[in-house]
Amino acid sequence: LYKILYIDPVGEEHSTPEIDGFLKQIVSEKVKIDFSFLKRGPANLEYMYYETLVTADIIHKVKRAEIDGYDAVIIGCFYDPGLYQSREITDIVVVGPGEASMCIASVLGYKFSVLAGRNKWVPIIMENIQKYGYKEKLASVKLLELGVEDFHKDDGYTETVMIAKGREAVEQDGAEVIILGCTMQFGFYSKLQEYLSIPVIDPIAASVKYAEFLLNVKKYFNWGHSKIGLYQSPPIEEIKRFDINNMYNLKDIW
Amino acid sequence: LYKILYIDPVGEEHSTPEIDGFLKQIVSEKVKIDFSFLKRGPANLEYMYYETLVTADIIHKVKRAEIDGYDAVIIGCFYDPGLYQSREITDIVVVGPGEASMCIASVLGYKFSVLAGRNKWVPIIMENIQKYGYKEKLASVKLLELGVEDFHKDDGYTETVMIAKGREAVEQDGAEVIILGCTMQFGFYSKLQEYLSIPVIDPIAASVKYAEFLLNVKKYFNWGHSKIGLYQSPPIEEIKRFDINNMYNLKDIW
Amino acid sequence: LYKILYIDPVGEEHSTPEIDGFLKQIVSEKVKIDFSFLKRGPANLEYMYYETLVTADIIHKVKRAEIDGYDAVIIGCFYDPGLYQSREITDIVVVGPGEASMCIASVLGYKFSVLAGRNKWVPIIMENIQKYGYKEKLASVKLLELGVEDFHKDDGYTETVMIAKGREAVEQDGAEVIILGCTMQFGFYSKLQEYLSIPVIDPIAASVKYAEFLLNVKKYFNWGHSKIGLYQSPPIEEIKRFDINNMYNLKDIW
Amino acid sequence: LYKILYIDPVGEEHSTPEIDGFLKQIVSEKVKIDFSFLKRGPANLEYMYYETLVTADIIHKVKRAEIDGYDAVIIGCFYDPGLYQSREITDIVVVGPGEASMCIASVLGYKFSVLAGRNKWVPIIMENIQKYGYKEKLASVKLLELGVEDFHKDDGYTETVMIAKGREAVEQDGAEVIILGCTMQFGFYSKLQEYLSIPVIDPIAASVKYAEFLLNVKKYFNWGHSKIGLYQSPPIEEIKRFDINNMYNLKDIW
Amino acid sequence: LYKILYIDPVGEEHSTPEIDGFLKQIVSEKVKIDFSFLKRGPANLEYMYYETLVTADIIHKVKRAEIDGYDAVIIGCFYDPGLYQSREITDIVVVGPGEASMCIASVLGYKFSVLAGRNKWVPIIMENIQKYGYKEKLASVKLLELGVEDFHKDDGYTETVMIAKGREAVEQDGAEVIILGCTMQFGFYSKLQEYLSIPVIDPIAASVKYAEFLLNVKKYFNWGHSKIGLYQSPPIEEIKRFDINNMYNLKDIW
Amino acid sequence: LYKILYIDPVGEEHSTPEIDGFLKQIVSEKVKIDFSFLKRGPANLEYMYYETLVTADIIHKVKRAEIDGYDAVIIGCFYDPGLYQSREITDIVVVGPGEASMCIASVLGYKFSVLAGRNKWVPIIMENIQKYGYKEKLASVKLLELGVEDFHKDDGYTETVMIAKGREAVEQDGAEVIILGCTMQFGFYSKLQEYLSIPVIDPIAASVKYAEFLLNVKKYFNWGHSKIGLYQSPPIEEIKRFDINNMYNLKDIW
Repeated sequence: LYKILYIDPVGEEHSTPEIDGFLKQIVSEKVKIDFSFLKRGPANLEYMYYETLVTADIIHKVKRAEIDGYDAVIIGCFYDPGLYQSREITDIVVVGPGEASMCIASVLGYKFSVLAGRNKWVPIIMENIQKYGYKEKLASVKLLELGVEDFHKDDGYTETVMIAKGREAVEQDGAEVIILGCTMQFGFYSKLQEYLSIPVIDPIAASVKYAEFLLNVKKYFNWGHSKIGLYQSPPIEEIKRFDINNMYNLKDIW
Repeated sequence: LYKILYIDPVGEEHSTPEIDGFLKQIVSEKVKIDFSFLKRGPANLEYMYYETLVTADIIHKVKRAEIDGYDAVIIGCFYDPGLYQSREITDIVVVGPGEASMCIASVLGYKFSVLAGRNKWVPIIMENIQKYGYKEKLASVKLLELGVEDFHKDDGYTETVMIAKGREAVEQDGAEVIILGCTMQFGFYSKLQEYLSIPVIDPIAASVKYAEFLLNVKKYFNWGHSKIGLYQSPPIEEIKRFDINNMYNLKDIW
Repeated sequence: LYKILYIDPVGEEHSTPEIDGFLKQIVSEKVKIDFSFLKRGPANLEYMYYETLVTADIIHKVKRAEIDGYDAVIIGCFYDPGLYQSREITDIVVVGPGEASMCIASVLGYKFSVLAGRNKWVPIIMENIQKYGYKEKLASVKLLELGVEDFHKDDGYTETVMIAKGREAVEQDGAEVIILGCTMQFGFYSKLQEYLSIPVIDPIAASVKYAEFLLNVKKYFNWGHSKIGLYQSPPIEEIKRFDINNMYNLKDIW
Repeated sequence: LYKILYIDPVGEEHSTPEIDGFLKQIVSEKVKIDFSFLKRGPANLEYMYYETLVTADIIHKVKRAEIDGYDAVIIGCFYDPGLYQSREITDIVVVGPGEASMCIASVLGYKFSVLAGRNKWVPIIMENIQKYGYKEKLASVKLLELGVEDFHKDDGYTETVMIAKGREAVEQDGAEVIILGCTMQFGFYSKLQEYLSIPVIDPIAASVKYAEFLLNVKKYFNWGHSKIGLYQSPPIEEIKRFDINNMYNLKDIW
Repeated sequence: LYKILYIDPVGEEHSTPEIDGFLKQIVSEKVKIDFSFLKRGPANLEYMYYETLVTADIIHKVKRAEIDGYDAVIIGCFYDPGLYQSREITDIVVVGPGEASMCIASVLGYKFSVLAGRNKWVPIIMENIQKYGYKEKLASVKLLELGVEDFHKDDGYTETVMIAKGREAVEQDGAEVIILGCTMQFGFYSKLQEYLSIPVIDPIAASVKYAEFLLNVKKYFNWGHSKIGLYQSPPIEEIKRFDINNMYNLKDIW
Repeated sequence: LYKILYIDPVGEEHSTPEIDGFLKQIVSEKVKIDFSFLKRGPANLEYMYYETLVTADIIHKVKRAEIDGYDAVIIGCFYDPGLYQSREITDIVVVGPGEASMCIASVLGYKFSVLAGRNKWVPIIMENIQKYGYKEKLASVKLLELGVEDFHKDDGYTETVMIAKGREAVEQDGAEVIILGCTMQFGFYSKLQEYLSIPVIDPIAASVKYAEFLLNVKKYFNWGHSKIGLYQSPPIEEIKRFDINNMYNLKDIW
């Protein structure tokens, strides 16, 4: 039995409990998945500033999850905030919806497009695509001109825009797979998939199955995040020496 | 219950039944995996010529597997011969060990190196890496100076060379993950992993778990190979019109 | 006197004898060029499957041509099926219309565009462009929305579409040279060239002159395909050991 | 008169007052530069975790500096932590030593090499190089095998290693300019420059002059960080609505 | 006190004295800037031929400026003709408006667009962008469909076209900064900047401040153009041995 | 009958009449090739300065050759000085040994290496490789540590170094073809070819056959240098208006 923690990286008042239901629905048997959120945080991470505000809380929550016996954590934002840092300070599986979606999309067709919200998102998404190595597989980033908090204001309208932009991606940019570029676009993938007749990747769905996959290769073959460079952990003695514990009120962590 | 077929793309006399045992050992519960081989073929695919000789037989065998009710097929060669073509003419999951290994390696560390046999292999491997979009994640291709049929002549020697070249990859090229660049390197990954203290990806092992993963995303979310471009199937009427059936003796296929 | 064989990689019933006339017309003095076709095969290679079906036959035909004393072979399809494999198993000059066209186009202007048929063709063409190293010289691949068998259904219509798409390539994408992306687009280049006032490369024409060129550098300077890596031949003893001869009914080959 | 704030992104006990002296020495007339540090923080940012811990404090200090009337801020770490975020939430000039060093190095010679500490640093440095767009100008990243806190333990030894690795960069990798890849390598550039007879960029020195340069183009031509995308600020009403003020104890900021 | 020479790389009858006024206006205190032109030359450098005609005269004028005690020279054309060669044969600071503009634009936003005149200019501009290493920062090159001599024929019209194309660059190509791609576009930047609300880089303005910046880093830290490779000077004895002096009538130079 | 002019881009006292003999030996029947040189110029073009000195003379000589009825011109230096400009101002075939060599090398094997003289040459060679679009085909540039005037000082020594560096290119860098990176390396290719058992491209030889090839495609299919962008000619009226004739003493040209 694997235990996975899903973190909605916002404070409780901004979190989306419907996601919990979706997670329970799509998780495999023999996997227990818990939904959680942060103690505080803005309602979206559209600005780098907001992302910075929550990242330390996210990675400490991931570290805490490891202590509490979770086998994997999903950081529920397409920007994958704190993904690499979390892998650095833990030994469990850590999954980001952005990376998971691209990993799946890249194998299902020639090129994929990402349906993003606003032009403000583009540099972050492009930086991640480049960092993960998927630039050659990208057809385009299409803008829906909607913010994170807008996607579910009028589902019908959102769907209409998604179909229009998805079609453009297919017809003009050569996309064969679509990625929904925000976890708050959940609930739309299957209908869109039907309309467009191509795979439409929901990032939450992608990250759950991707977490199960990484848990499997770890269990069977002991393939976890390599710890000799990018994900090498800071030595615990150094953390003690710097008194990070007290400095940042992290007594339940270190 | 998923049914997976593993094809050792050589004739019976050259096939490696030990692989069958390995497959059974690493497959998940509720998955049935069968080992098979071709009717004919050379002992290795080190030359493009040999690859061409067997590719048509491979993809017809994949098509036949679909007819016979398999949910997924693994084409057991690191060069992934016939991978894209098989996806083109079927609707099932088709997995190549090369693609599967790189997909896993790319997420487990900053960069990966491939332990290949001879310089002859490099152009094919590089072409695939480029095609799959993993070029930015590649640290190096290291040559063991061994052919496909040499890996198990003297396991001790092979292991020694692998460790030496793996270390070079880590220390000189910045590799954080190693991929064994030939399915015939099976049996070595776990010892090498222990020595090098980083993930060492066995391509057979990778492709089994990868197949299970793709089967899962298909079952849960209906995400299969996109059929509008790269993997679009030839119309069955055209296949009939061209009389491919008779021309190539494929009466059990079309 | 050079002897060149042109292979129309389809079965006789689908072959285009007009090409023979065109070849005779454009070949240099002191070069003898023969037109031939395969024993079998579909009418087009638009699908990877069809390409796989004919590739083994193509490369054996090239090998046979070498035995029969030909100095060079042209594989008459813009996808260049079997090009690298043929160079691997022979020592003669082997030319593909795709490579030949790009080689010429790349030197005649800043960037070139390819007029292709359908979006299905794009991944294969892009893979070749990347493999040959011409990606930086590509302005765009434009789609005529016509299949291989459609180009000569209504020459007037085809010409109109070609002019429209060629103009777009020039005005919107910055193309200074156009490549006709299919050998079945023969017959159109000179009119198109006149309309657009830029070089329009016909792939058959390109491959004939390119073959003569490679024959010349071989004759004068002994510059043939390098045989130490990509084009290194399988050892004849290995071919014998694997009994490829009998296995694939190739008694006139090995 | 320009006012610049230099932030040593560590807590007081780990900060390096000698830097203050160096700053005063190299600043132009009519520029006032102040040295400061954080309230808390580890002694180095070699791990992504440490960087995450201090980033929110850094960018709030930058915002505070803007309120206090500073015209520019330098974030004193070669990793440029919080650089883009600081530009997002302020309208003043924000400079990172990494970006500043590369900007200068890229114009002074064909290619530059970076002298970094350990392999752990490479992915972060490479990610920044890629993000800033200088990848084509990079000759190599050379490792001194020294940590941030080691550079001034034995200046003689550090110098010896720097010369050795600098020479390798020049002779083997084709570097024509050297960048010292850590602000804690201050004090070495001029001697190294003399030995190697090429420009050796000290990142602190680079960032002071670069800040003056950006202040000048802003004053003369009103060229500041573009605020329509990457550096677009979150709306102040949104910051209020999310109550970031109280949530993160930032009453002196928003 | 720094002395800078600005060279308008055309003959006197084609030179633009208004530039002199602009230079005086934007130069810093303690910097003396002189305006000059060539003895001969066409009115524009839109053709490579014209550029070749003037390049030798330009670099000799730069060399002469060094002899005459100038600390820096600006070569007043966006193509930066003779930039690298001038650095090769002198030890002073040499600045090109193209390089200077891109250096500034690359740090002020995610991507920049260049407003060029005609499609004829594109290959040269692209070659420079690639050579300087800014390709990843380029959003697009937009064509105004105006020649060098047209920009000031009807300022109102030019402005209208610039605004239209600048807007396209922002809205369709994701530009966050605009570069005016010709020194003859001087006089437009500040109005355009106001309309578009993003930095609009005037290449003359950019090169003056950039020259001051490079003079500063040279004075303070002795960072000049690296002289071991790209900018290594021909030995004076070799120049004597070849009698370049007499051959090219350069008695005031060597 | 084609008439080709070979220009040795140095003054008579530095020119190499042995090249004339070599040209006569390798030219095809029905082609007449003449050897010529400049009125003045340094003995080598190793410095950008020297290249600038001779470029205007080269392109005017090419223009004059067109007037005199030559069908093609070869500019006899591996740097291809004035290649693009010559194509701009004429309508004949213009060939550079660098471009010609790479065009041939790129098709004869997986990757090629260039044997250059000194590190000073690398940026120019790399810029050309990038401009021509062959970067993906380059294995390495190897330095012989010899100048242009050294190659024939001691042929035995030069040969020894060439073999050593050629072997390194093959064994360490994966080269399958070698290009001699200077026209003054003539006389060595065939022996080197024998030693290394791979094609060794002599740039003079390459450019002669390449010129014949381009003449053929022009004669047969009217494929010449595209004149709508990169090679678009300046209007003759503009040349007259600028009085280039008198200004540069070019009365026999315009």
